[in-house]
Amino acid sequence: MQRDEGVRRLQALGFAAAAAGTLWEHFDDAEQRGKLGHGYSRIPWLERLEGYDPKAEPLVVVDDVGFQRWNGNGTIGYLVLAEAVTRQIAQPPEHARVVVCERTFPTGMLGHYVRRLAEAGLVGLLTATSPARLGPPGGPKAAGTNPLAIGIPSSDGQPVVTDVSMGAVTWGDVIAGLAEEEQLVPFGGEQWHKAFALAVGLQLVVDGLVREPGYGAVLLVARPEADPVPALRALGLRLPGE
Amino acid sequence: MQRDEGVRRLQALGFAAAAAGTLWEHFDDAEQRGKLGHGYSRIPWLERLEGYDPKAEPLVVVDDVGFQRWNGNGTIGYLVLAEAVTRQIAQPPEHARVVVCERTFPTGMLGHYVRRLAEAGLVGLLTATSPARLGPPGGPKAAGTNPLAIGIPSSDGQPVVTDVSMGAVTWGDVIAGLAEEEQLVPFGGEQWHKAFALAVGLQLVVDGLVREPGYGAVLLVARPEADPVPALRALGLRLPGE
Repeated sequence: MQRDEGVRRLQALGFAAAAAGTLWEHFDDAEQRGKLGHGYSRIPWLERLEGYDPKAEPLVVVDDVGFQRWNGNGTIGYLVLAEAVTRQIAQPPEHARVVVCERTFPTGMLGHYVRRLAEAGLVGLLTATSPARLGPPGGPKAAGTNPLAIGIPSSDGQPVVTDVSMGAVTWGDVIAGLAEEEQLVPFGGEQWHKAFALAVGLQLVVDGLVREPGYGAVLLVARPEADPVPALRALGLRLPGE
Repeated sequence: MQRDEGVRRLQALGFAAAAAGTLWEHFDDAEQRGKLGHGYSRIPWLERLEGYDPKAEPLVVVDDVGFQRWNGNGTIGYLVLAEAVTRQIAQPPEHARVVVCERTFPTGMLGHYVRRLAEAGLVGLLTATSPARLGPPGGPKAAGTNPLAIGIPSSDGQPVVTDVSMGAVTWGDVIAGLAEEEQLVPFGGEQWHKAFALAVGLQLVVDGLVREPGYGAVLLVARPEADPVPALRALGLRLPGE
């Protein structure tokens, strides 16, 4: 898909030009990284999705030293995280800040957001919740795939970005027809309980910190005090996200 | 091992009575939970460990709204995290606080600390670094087992505590003779790259936030705004840490 078509289709859904551009950048970043389940396939998916207001804008409902609370206010989660990240870059914390985003769904490829922070010189750690699709074998679905994404700036200009979903496949892969829903189990094989525990723990962090129920995200953003990436890269291994 | 013997042996290493009691509580908690690699086996291990000062006390070197920086100041990591947790409980954040602990090693079973926070009504998310023992198959060892522990309070009096090491076995298991060092690879089987990415990302968060190089820990502590555990427990599945 070309940018013109993508942005036009997003604007046809009611998004303003700037918001449509923000969404396109997300989908295009995912597509270019080979994460097709988070890429262009999300545009026809958005065309079928209900329950969001393309004209709404996220609200900052608490803004204290070291803490912010955002509320999606009816808009789509991608735009909440995109705007929250823009704000962190414009007004970085002196040391660190915890950012709770409520009514924030769907949020897409979390690595996209922490990469933006890392490129702006900030450490980021981000998780977000989504519908319960993971459970123990034969048991109830109790946790979303709840990824954990981490971005670390580097003096060599190449941040390290890790972005790990707790599912063996992603829901995006299912949407894109790249995987069957039955394959969506906690990753880890016989140690599936570890990925499931991570998914449950991260979900409860979000669910425990939001004031309004619903899917959300928790971001930790911090000013780095050291530059550990070059030494790690010098070990000569392929780092995550490369 | 009985408490009397354990505390006596720890005091013989130079720890004051209170510190020896704190260490015993940690090892006994691990032992009672069946985490033998973090239990009593650590007492003979400490008797052989060098490089710490049993009389040293951790320092708070930065204490701002939403952020604290601790320095182990030569003491053993267990006591840094134990004291940092005690401080969080005595002076909880209004919203959230990021606590960076540098020169903090070894730290043991991270679930122990977030359980204390959760029992005191606080959400906790904690990671800590350790010697590089994980790498890609045949590649360099680039990351510690770097666990992620999460504790969530519950109105039913039973917090959920998840504590996931990124190794297929723990170094504690190796120390306790329960596993071979060759088994210490990223968990996940054919999806080992996911656990490895988590270990690398968490390590870089710690390494990026410490001012003094060396192993350390990063804790996020927050006041909950919701009570998600009872509904999750009502699904009837065995939750992590139970």
